Amino acid sequence: MVIYSIVLLTVFVPGCGMTDLWKSLRIDADRLRADFDALAVLGSTGDGGVHRPALGEAHLAARAWLKERILGSGLEFRIDGAGNHSALLTCGLPDAPTLLLGSHLDSVPKGGRFDGALGVLAALETLRVVKDAGLQGLSLICHLEAIDFTDEEGTLVGLLGSSALAGSLTSQDLINPRGGRQALLSGLERAGLTEEGLLSAGRDPGSLAGYLELHIEQGSRLEKAGVDIGVVSGIVGIGSYSLTFIGRADHAGTTSMADRLDAAQGASAFTLGVRELVMDRFPDCVANVGWMQFEPGAFNIVPARATLSLEYRAPVDSVFDQLEKALIEQAQVAALDHCLELQVEFLGRHSPVLMSADVRSAITQSANALGLTSTPLASGAGHDAQSLGQLCPAGLIFIPSVGGVSHSPREFSQWKDCVNGANVLLQAALRLAIR
Amino acid sequence: MVIYSIVLLTVFVPGCGMTDLWKSLRIDADRLRADFDALAVLGSTGDGGVHRPALGEAHLAARAWLKERILGSGLEFRIDGAGNHSALLTCGLPDAPTLLLGSHLDSVPKGGRFDGALGVLAALETLRVVKDAGLQGLSLICHLEAIDFTDEEGTLVGLLGSSALAGSLTSQDLINPRGGRQALLSGLERAGLTEEGLLSAGRDPGSLAGYLELHIEQGSRLEKAGVDIGVVSGIVGIGSYSLTFIGRADHAGTTSMADRLDAAQGASAFTLGVRELVMDRFPDCVANVGWMQFEPGAFNIVPARATLSLEYRAPVDSVFDQLEKALIEQAQVAALDHCLELQVEFLGRHSPVLMSADVRSAITQSANALGLTSTPLASGAGHDAQSLGQLCPAGLIFIPSVGGVSHSPREFSQWKDCVNGANVLLQAALRLAIR
Repeated sequence: MVIYSIVLLTVFVPGCGMTDLWKSLRIDADRLRADFDALAVLGSTGDGGVHRPALGEAHLAARAWLKERILGSGLEFRIDGAGNHSALLTCGLPDAPTLLLGSHLDSVPKGGRFDGALGVLAALETLRVVKDAGLQGLSLICHLEAIDFTDEEGTLVGLLGSSALAGSLTSQDLINPRGGRQALLSGLERAGLTEEGLLSAGRDPGSLAGYLELHIEQGSRLEKAGVDIGVVSGIVGIGSYSLTFIGRADHAGTTSMADRLDAAQGASAFTLGVRELVMDRFPDCVANVGWMQFEPGAFNIVPARATLSLEYRAPVDSVFDQLEKALIEQAQVAALDHCLELQVEFLGRHSPVLMSADVRSAITQSANALGLTSTPLASGAGHDAQSLGQLCPAGLIFIPSVGGVSHSPREFSQWKDCVNGANVLLQAALRLAIR
Repeated sequence: MVIYSIVLLTVFVPGCGMTDLWKSLRIDADRLRADFDALAVLGSTGDGGVHRPALGEAHLAARAWLKERILGSGLEFRIDGAGNHSALLTCGLPDAPTLLLGSHLDSVPKGGRFDGALGVLAALETLRVVKDAGLQGLSLICHLEAIDFTDEEGTLVGLLGSSALAGSLTSQDLINPRGGRQALLSGLERAGLTEEGLLSAGRDPGSLAGYLELHIEQGSRLEKAGVDIGVVSGIVGIGSYSLTFIGRADHAGTTSMADRLDAAQGASAFTLGVRELVMDRFPDCVANVGWMQFEPGAFNIVPARATLSLEYRAPVDSVFDQLEKALIEQAQVAALDHCLELQVEFLGRHSPVLMSADVRSAITQSANALGLTSTPLASGAGHDAQSLGQLCPAGLIFIPSVGGVSHSPREFSQWKDCVNGANVLLQAALRLAIR
């Protein structure tokens, strides 16, 4: 176990009274960095990235590490039925609502070490700074909770932990999850979780004051504009399907090209068509065919089945619906063109969500007060703030991603930007928690 | 263990002298059927097919079963360095060459129960009939050997056992086999084989009188023409490559469609292009993309790598070379069009091979003598006869496949056609072995 020296950075700015103490608080950048580097070792891919799919070995190790850090910081630890891990700092008022700060420790396969991890660690650091400053001088009107949500990336079920907490997860979502039913069941068993627990992890909206999340942008707009902080206006809607084109397995030497019912042809035509469709008709949207498998899958057999995963995103509800419809039609046409059957499995969707005007204002004011430039922008990536935005006032802070690269070991953000983002998180949280 | 009653079908046709005894010999259809049904249980897919990839559990079980059947028939058993299993019936002349009869027990994943299995069992049955008839009356001028070749289907290395026996297998073929180096090594270990054994299993061409194989057509030409027996004129050349399109992993939500380097686009464009190319420019050829994999392979990551397996076949050498060149150019164009890199791995090729005129003639005469119709035709599928054809006079007998379906559990041949084929094999073998 590594013992970190705890440096109290609380200083009194001349002219500030006790009530303005909070404005002078800053996160301990060294302590945050030590945590960040220690966490990046767990599931490290060796080239700057991490491989921590939800409820896999490395992810569980990261969670165990977080629990230890929480307890080591003298904060209360809690785990809910969805496996969300929390650090708690109560304000002393028994009926006060809770202000949640968080993100996620899981990653996509071979992903980056910033995505999610930075937000969880900055939330934990925020609680430590407030605890170290002494609650008496701050007069918080709500409890603070730093939370790590289960499976934000959707290895098993997209936004699993946050939608469970928001009460929007249904048993239907667990029957045919996009990671496969068996993977979900084994993951839950590994983590000591149950479906019943997931479905009863919902919180009362009245118990929550709001939600704040710090995250890397995962795009290049902030970097290109030379702006420090992104104040997220809303999060795109995300939907996903599994599509299977079904033809006939035949000997690849003795069956003439004309006689084949080759499932690979339909899947390939669809994959090319998706890109054309989105670029031509849905310029504000994106779609991805990120996985494909042929069956039986041998050199000398014409593929009988080609299954692929489709994900698509749109900024507003009306466009989201049109895009979904156009994509499924595209698949039907590809199947028809190649004399194939098509099996369509809907795997789930999260509607576009607007961030709270109050929380956005708290973020913008905090950035200004810290001397940082900021700009409103939409998020093309899904985030736990999407689930929380349906439950309580939610906000999302972005910092620049170098080159816009993400979901890759090459994902990177400058450390100064990470520190800026964590300070905006701290200040915005205090702005919301002290009134 | 099942004990089969052995029925000696040898009858003397009126007017035949001792020297013509062989013309009256017929296989024991019930004994062959009992073997066929018992073998189909091993690796059964439950829907009429078998799953016996080379050196996998079911394939090793099938080989153990064959060994037991050979020994139970009072024939000598032999295994060579390539794991080829043989039954031997020596003719009594110590320096006589051997006439090989055989095929293979391995299958493609979820393949049919006729492909390969019928040829091995008919070869074994041929030896049993000759043994039961008594060697003294037959005056064979060569030994008979019924052989089961290792990995005809190329789960690990295409035509592994027969090319090892033909002496055409090189250490180069084992370094980057199409099933992967690790799969080859574990397969060999499971079967108690070694690379040294494989490379030293070659036989002296002078020791062989010829090779005869019975196989299902795996196409629909015989069925459509209403002909009993196909006398194969030659076997197409087969080549295979692994192609990898390389782009960049990016977040599928935050990276605009225009900014992506999506490996799936190149692989899909190539897969569609292969079909067009072959149909437009190479009407006598076929090509197949039978397997594909994206990396990292997640819903929300733009694929960085798309690897696919390519197999192609052509009837004559000049066309074979042109087709190969055109396919690789097609892949290069697909990569270029989508700003991707291309990795080309050559996995192996077997040149087109002509069957021996003498052996073809023996097959045709035998079919005629049995009152069966026959026609010459080329084989679009690779066969062990392809390896043997480079070593000694080789011939290949086809029987009709219902609907031309093969490499599928729906592969089927009428039992009367199987019996006809086995009798042609027996008679053609005797025609070559008694002179």
